[in-house]
Order: sequence, then C-alpha cells, then structure tokens
Amino acid sequence: MFEALEVGKKINGEEFDEREKALRQELLTAQFDLAERDYPVIVLVAGLDGAGKGALVHRLNEWMDPRGIETNTFWEHSDEEESHPYFWRFWRKLPPRGKIAIFLGSWYSHAGQAAIAGDIGRKELVRQCQEGEYFESTLSGDGAVIIKLWLHVSRDTQRAQLEGTAPGKKQNPRVTDQPYEFTGSYKKSLKVAERIILESDSRHSPWHLIEAEDRRYRDITAGEIILAAMQQASSKATSNNSAPTVKNGQDQKQPTVLETVDLSLSLDRETYKQQLEEYQSRLQELAWDAYRQGRSVVAVFEGWDAAGKGSAIRRVTGALDPRLYRLVQFAAPTDEEKAHHYLWRFWRNLERDGRATLFDRSWYGRLLVERVEGFATSDEWQRAYSEINHFEEQLANHGSIVLKFWLHISQDEQLARFKAREQEPHKRYKITNDDWRNREKWPDYELAVDEMVYRTSTRHAPWTLVSGNDKPYARIQILKTFCKSIERALDD
Amino acid sequence: MFEALEVGKKINGEEFDEREKALRQELLTAQFDLAERDYPVIVLVAGLDGAGKGALVHRLNEWMDPRGIETNTFWEHSDEEESHPYFWRFWRKLPPRGKIAIFLGSWYSHAGQAAIAGDIGRKELVRQCQEGEYFESTLSGDGAVIIKLWLHVSRDTQRAQLEGTAPGKKQNPRVTDQPYEFTGSYKKSLKVAERIILESDSRHSPWHLIEAEDRRYRDITAGEIILAAMQQASSKATSNNSAPTVKNGQDQKQPTVLETVDLSLSLDRETYKQQLEEYQSRLQELAWDAYRQGRSVVAVFEGWDAAGKGSAIRRVTGALDPRLYRLVQFAAPTDEEKAHHYLWRFWRNLERDGRATLFDRSWYGRLLVERVEGFATSDEWQRAYSEINHFEEQLANHGSIVLKFWLHISQDEQLARFKAREQEPHKRYKITNDDWRNREKWPDYELAVDEMVYRTSTRHAPWTLVSGNDKPYARIQILKTFCKSIERALDD
Repeated sequence: MFEALEVGKKINGEEFDEREKALRQELLTAQFDLAERDYPVIVLVAGLDGAGKGALVHRLNEWMDPRGIETNTFWEHSDEEESHPYFWRFWRKLPPRGKIAIFLGSWYSHAGQAAIAGDIGRKELVRQCQEGEYFESTLSGDGAVIIKLWLHVSRDTQRAQLEGTAPGKKQNPRVTDQPYEFTGSYKKSLKVAERIILESDSRHSPWHLIEAEDRRYRDITAGEIILAAMQQASSKATSNNSAPTVKNGQDQKQPTVLETVDLSLSLDRETYKQQLEEYQSRLQELAWDAYRQGRSVVAVFEGWDAAGKGSAIRRVTGALDPRLYRLVQFAAPTDEEKAHHYLWRFWRNLERDGRATLFDRSWYGRLLVERVEGFATSDEWQRAYSEINHFEEQLANHGSIVLKFWLHISQDEQLARFKAREQEPHKRYKITNDDWRNREKWPDYELAVDEMVYRTSTRHAPWTLVSGNDKPYARIQILKTFCKSIERALDD
Repeated sequence: MFEALEVGKKINGEEFDEREKALRQELLTAQFDLAERDYPVIVLVAGLDGAGKGALVHRLNEWMDPRGIETNTFWEHSDEEESHPYFWRFWRKLPPRGKIAIFLGSWYSHAGQAAIAGDIGRKELVRQCQEGEYFESTLSGDGAVIIKLWLHVSRDTQRAQLEGTAPGKKQNPRVTDQPYEFTGSYKKSLKVAERIILESDSRHSPWHLIEAEDRRYRDITAGEIILAAMQQASSKATSNNSAPTVKNGQDQKQPTVLETVDLSLSLDRETYKQQLEEYQSRLQELAWDAYRQGRSVVAVFEGWDAAGKGSAIRRVTGALDPRLYRLVQFAAPTDEEKAHHYLWRFWRNLERDGRATLFDRSWYGRLLVERVEGFATSDEWQRAYSEINHFEEQLANHGSIVLKFWLHISQDEQLARFKAREQEPHKRYKITNDDWRNREKWPDYELAVDEMVYRTSTRHAPWTLVSGNDKPYARIQILKTFCKSIERALDD
C-alpha cells in the first residue's frame, strides 16, 4: 500500500505559487457555496507522525475563510471526555450544516495508538475501526461530506522530522505533541495504518493517501482533494445527479509507482535457462505441497498490452500439473455475467482448496479499463477499491495465497513490440486498433495503476510490479515470486 | 425485542382468502415488472426453529411465478462449499437482475448456530454478522433489493412444532432438517438472534420481524412485506424519487405490544404512600452508589399525551440529589440543533459518569411524532432504528444504565384526563389543539410504538411498558424499575 507513496512526488516553488493562487480562490468560492448548503464538511487529517499533519492544517486554515472553518485537535484527553462514551468527544465537535470542521487526530487515532503499543490486538482494532466507520456512515447518511486524508512519509523523512533536522522543519511548527500520535516502531505503524485504512475505506468516505515528503506537493494535493470533494457534493446537491469524476488529487505530471520499476534489468540466455528450470521444478513441487495442505493459489495477471502476459503465464502453467490449476481468461462480460454484480464472475471461477486459479485479466478491470474508458461510473469504480480489498481478504482468510502481477514495460518497448507484431504474419492478429487506442491513453492508465497499487496492495494480497522490458527477466521474476510466496505461506 | 412478537397477531380464514387473492395478483404484477428491471430481489427467510420458515417458502413459491424465482436452501454443506471461502456458496446462488431468489438459511445461520452451541463467542459472532452486512451492502450498492424476514414463535409453539403436536403441523411439511437450524436452548437462541438482528439491521437491508404463531398472519404479512419492498424499489427506479412509505407489514387491525399491558392494575393510597417512601429512599442511596462507582443512568420517558409523564418524573427526581441528575426536556429542535444530525442534541446533553440524565421525550421522537406526522422522511426514520440501537449500545458499553419507559393509558382514560384538564383553570394550559389532533392519530402512533418496541427493546436498553391508568401504580412501577435496574447493574 505505501510503496506507491514513496515515489518522489513534488512541486517546485514556481508551480506551487501558481497552483496555490488558483486553489485558494476556488476553495473560498466552494466555502461560500457551502454556507448555503444543508450539509457539513468534515476533513480528517491523519497519518504518520512527522508527516506534517499540523503544518497542513495550518495551511488549510490560511487558505480558507476562518469564519466557516473550525479545527479540532485531540491531543489530550479531558476528564470530561473520559467520563462519557468515546464518541461523545467527536459528536460535540461536529460542524453544523454549511460549515467545515478539520479533525486533527480522529476516531481512529486512539485505536491506532493502542494497537501500535500492543495494548489491543487485531480483532479489537478492527472492531474499533468499524465503530468509526459506522459513525461516518451515520453522518454521511445525514448528508455530511467526509474527506479523509492520510499523510505518508518514508522512514528517513520521519526520523529527520522528529529529530528536527528536516530542512523545512522550522517553517512547520507542529501543532500536536505526542500523546495522540502514531509514535512507535515505523514498521508496526505501517501495519496498523494499513489495517485502519482497509477497515474504514468505505464508499461514502474513502481515504485519500498522500505522499507527504514534499510539503508543497502535500499541501496542494490535500487542498485539491478537499476542493474536488466539495465541488462534487455541491454539484450533486444542485443537479440531483451524479457528479463529475473526482480527481483524487492525481496529477499527470507526477511520478507514479511504475517509475520505481527498474526497466533495465535483464538476464542473459544462459542464466535464464538455468533459472527457468530451477524455479519451474521448485514450483511444481510447491504446487503439490500446497495441494496436500489444502491451500489454494489465486494469481492475477495484469499489465500493459504486449507486456508479455501470455508468455509469462505459459512459463507458470508449464510448471504445474494440469490437475492442479485452471487458467481463466477474461474479455468483455457475457450477458449472464452482466446480470450480476461484477465480482460474481470471479467468485464463480475460483478453484477449490489445494488448486491454483490463474486469472489472465481480473477484477482489476474495473479499476483499469472500465475506469479509464468510462465503462464504470465513478461511483462504481470508487467503491470497487473497498469491494476488492474485502474480496481478497476473504480469500486470504480462507487460506488462499493471493498473488498479483502488473507487467510493466516502457512506452518505447511497447511501440517496438506493436510494430514487430505487425510485421509477423502469425502474430498480426494480436494487434488491433484497440491496442493503438489504449496506447494513447497511457497517462490515464498510469494514474489508474498508481492508485490501484496504493489502494489495493496489501499485506495479504500484495502487488508485484514486474520489470518487463526483458521478457526472460520478467518470467523469472514471476516464477520466483510464486515460489517464495507459496513457501512463506506453507511455512506459516 | 421479541416481547412485541408474542401479542397474538392473527388472521381468520375468510380474511386470509380475501387478502391472499389480492396479494397473489399484486405479487405477480410486481414480478412481471421486476423482469424489466436491472436489479435482483433477494429474500432471506430466517428465524427460530419451528417458526415455519419452510412452510412460508412453500407458500411464496406457490404465490409467485416459479419461472422468475429460485429457492436456495443451505441445510447441508457440500465438500465443494467447504473448500472455498465461506461466501462463495452464496455468491454462486445470487439471482441475476430481474429475478428473485429466496434464501432459506443464510450467511447468518452458520454463525448463529455456532454461537448457540457455544463454539464462538460474542466478538466472533459480531465479526461474522458484519461480514454478512458487508456482503449485503456490496449487493445493494449494486442495486439489489434485499428483504430480510425473521420469524418468531413463542417457546410453547416452538415445542409443539418440533414435537409434531401443533395443529397445522401436517399441512406444513418442513423443508429443512436440522443441521443449519437454530436448535438449542430457546433462551440462548433469542439472545443470539437479537445480536444478529442488531448487528445486521442496516438501512439498505433492514430486518422485518414477524410474529409467526398464526400461519395465515405469518404468510400474508411476509408476502405483503415483500410486495411493498418490490413496489418501493420499482417506483424508485421509475421516478428516480423517494418512494412511498413501506407498510412494513403493519396492520392496524392487529393487536400491538401495548395490548399486553394490563391497564387494570392499581394501588390503594396506603400502599402507594408506603412504597413511594420505600423506593424513593432506595433510589436515593442507589444513585449515590452509582455515583461512587462512576456509573451513569440514562432514562427516557415517552408516552401518550396526559399519560402522567411529568408527575412520574417528579417522583423520580424527588428521590435524587440535585447534584446527581439533570432533567432535559425536548420540544421542537432549535436552529442550532437542526443544523446537526438529529442525534447530536441528545449526545450533547449526556451527563458525565456517575450522574443521571432524565430525558422527558427523547431521540424516540424520530420514530414517533416525526414518523407519524411526516416530519422525517421514510428513509430518515427507517435508518433511525439502527442509529438508535447503536447509540444506546455505546452508552451501555461505556457503563451507562439505560432505562426506557413508555407510559401507556387507554384511549378512554386519555379522554377523561383531557376533559378534566379543560375544567381546571390551572391545568388548562396543558391541553392544546395539538393534543386533540394527536389523539386522532392514536392508531398510527400505536403502530409506531409497536415497531419501536420490537426494534429497539434490547438486552442492554430494554423498554418498560408502564401501566398508566392508575397514576400511583405507574409511579411505583417506574421507581421500582429504576431501583432494580441500578441494583442489577451495580452487582455486575
């Protein structure tokens, strides 16, 4: 989940000034419009310690009209709060209709802190998150617009911030001081954070994850997310119609998680042959081990057109006894499939325990082609993140080993392959006008992949980004990941 | 919760024939209409063992066109089901858009049975119910109409059914046979049933509780609930507008839970004086005990106009040290209150631990006056059941002792009191045109109270129906309930 939030998104001073100017103006307009509306706006600023939550809240207050906004910090407990049910402290701070409240520290902070400290276990954390989620659904059922921001920083940046050695440090006075913070082991914090986000990422109030290394990027992105949500709510209220797609703070000029993939990796023919043999025979045995232990494997293959999905899958199936796997390919849904929830066609294709199901394209179609091409409404693909995480968690809880591969190649490499295909008679059928059209939407797909990775790469179902310019390298990377994941799972 | 489902609702043969005829016709029309719609209908038939679930499903199949309906029973596990994630078995049985599926045995049965058998604890039961609830929200988010029916029978009827001595027995062949049933201690079953219903009673798929003693009443009511839900969905789909209020299977001719209140009870003056003194002094001490233990009391007073709420409350406050309680009265909400979620004004008035808050009228206004007078939309008051149960559970989990009184009087008694008030100059202000108008809506209020009691009377926050024709009796009943409830809670 967080790997996609350490890719170096940033904004320079000049661009910041320009975008800030426009943003401030639009935020004020949105705030002015909100005053006439019959719903409140609730902004949660959450995230890792040292990610600049306090500084962001400062900035938001600076940008907006202070008369319509109130900031609530929960960094100490009053004894009055302690002697009421937990949510009392939040109920009394809720904004009235037409106003905004920013919550620095939220209904999740307490549970998160307790989980990091080891005072509560996972089940209790889940329960408390669901209480929070219920609270939000109560409010949004009544019309409230809830915007949840999660700020992420890398381990190094966190350290620098907390030790006061970060460059921007003195410009960002910290509002809160410890008690309600996510202090504790960085690794443990991430684990807890992922759990909180998964449990409370509902369709009426999704989390927005923001890379917070660069304060300019962090603030502009947060501001634009808030603006988009306010505009969407307003247009919904006015037209009684579905609103335009929220930008989700995405920006085509920023690097995405795909840029973290080193595309220069390759294998020479000799090493490839040797490793192919090695990993295929390991996989063959592991598949039988998994069968004997009743553990199923669910593997998803997604990637750019011409990234080599098909041939990579063949290297996997080549290692598997046909009794132990099924390969399912997905194109457009059938009539019967269309008559059901979109997840239905994947559920029905799951093999039973001990067997592997390989999905050549998958439920991620909703977040990729259906999103980009507009086949799914914005409401549909936005709620799919939570539906998919939930689906995969059910698989994992049942004991399935879930693997997800995105085969990445460069745009140049794709072009070269397209052209090569057109040359070769027996491959010409593989290249269609659709492929060329999709190629034009590369930047849109890249944003969709970026969001897909940071919202659905989880501990129980991680994404593997495959370096695909060199086909041999990609195949071995996939086989290796298969072997390691199954080994790790069977060791449990 | 279930006390309101043992009041003897029934339908005679003649009425049954008449209503059945109309119902069948309308169900077929609704089914015909559904075939053109882009959503499925899912009917869950759940309930106690021996409540006639199988018989009801038979009947529904008889009434509707079998070509558009499919019944799924989960009374045995296949090994194929066992070797997939739990929800796989339900996903593959989901109806396509335009069709109906009836589920006999559902995603809750397994957890319920395990909880009754003591194999899983409360936390795990809650978790599994929430999984079920999430499943439903996934489906209803996609458009599915989900109708959940819960059939209740008394302990005696259950026994007669299971032993085969019930009169209608041989006409109702049972479809299911044990494994997936709610067998086990009746008391334990009810406790588990209440938990399941509370945890999964969401606004998109509420539970409908049906008294199932009389099979004619049971079947007609179930059929009418299904019909109303289908009609509502259809009218929403057509007009893109909020639909008419669902009847919720209510029927003004049927007895309500209020008829279980014995209004002939009374106390002579001597006994009253003696008991008043006794219970008031006990309550005084108990209030201090509660204070010392940091336990708060939250008491709600609702009832008919002129039922004697005010004077009964005075007998309670008379026993309490003013430092230990606050009496809050509610009329129409203020502007500030209107600018928040309707629960906000009650949250903000909660006293801290160790103190009592007495609510003269309360959050139940939403389910009473606001429902009956149409001040709340049907969507608003219908989701209030779950919101209120959740609110009160938070209070109880925090350690508050929650008491709820409905002061009941007969219509004649109310009339006599109204007239008496008009006679007495110093009481004349207490009777307004509103009171006379409310009186005309007695039957509507009675239905609202009936549903309120069976949907919000819970283990942690039970309703006490007070026999109010005799004021002394009512006051003592209330004081006694206060004392006993506090004693029981402090003993814990």
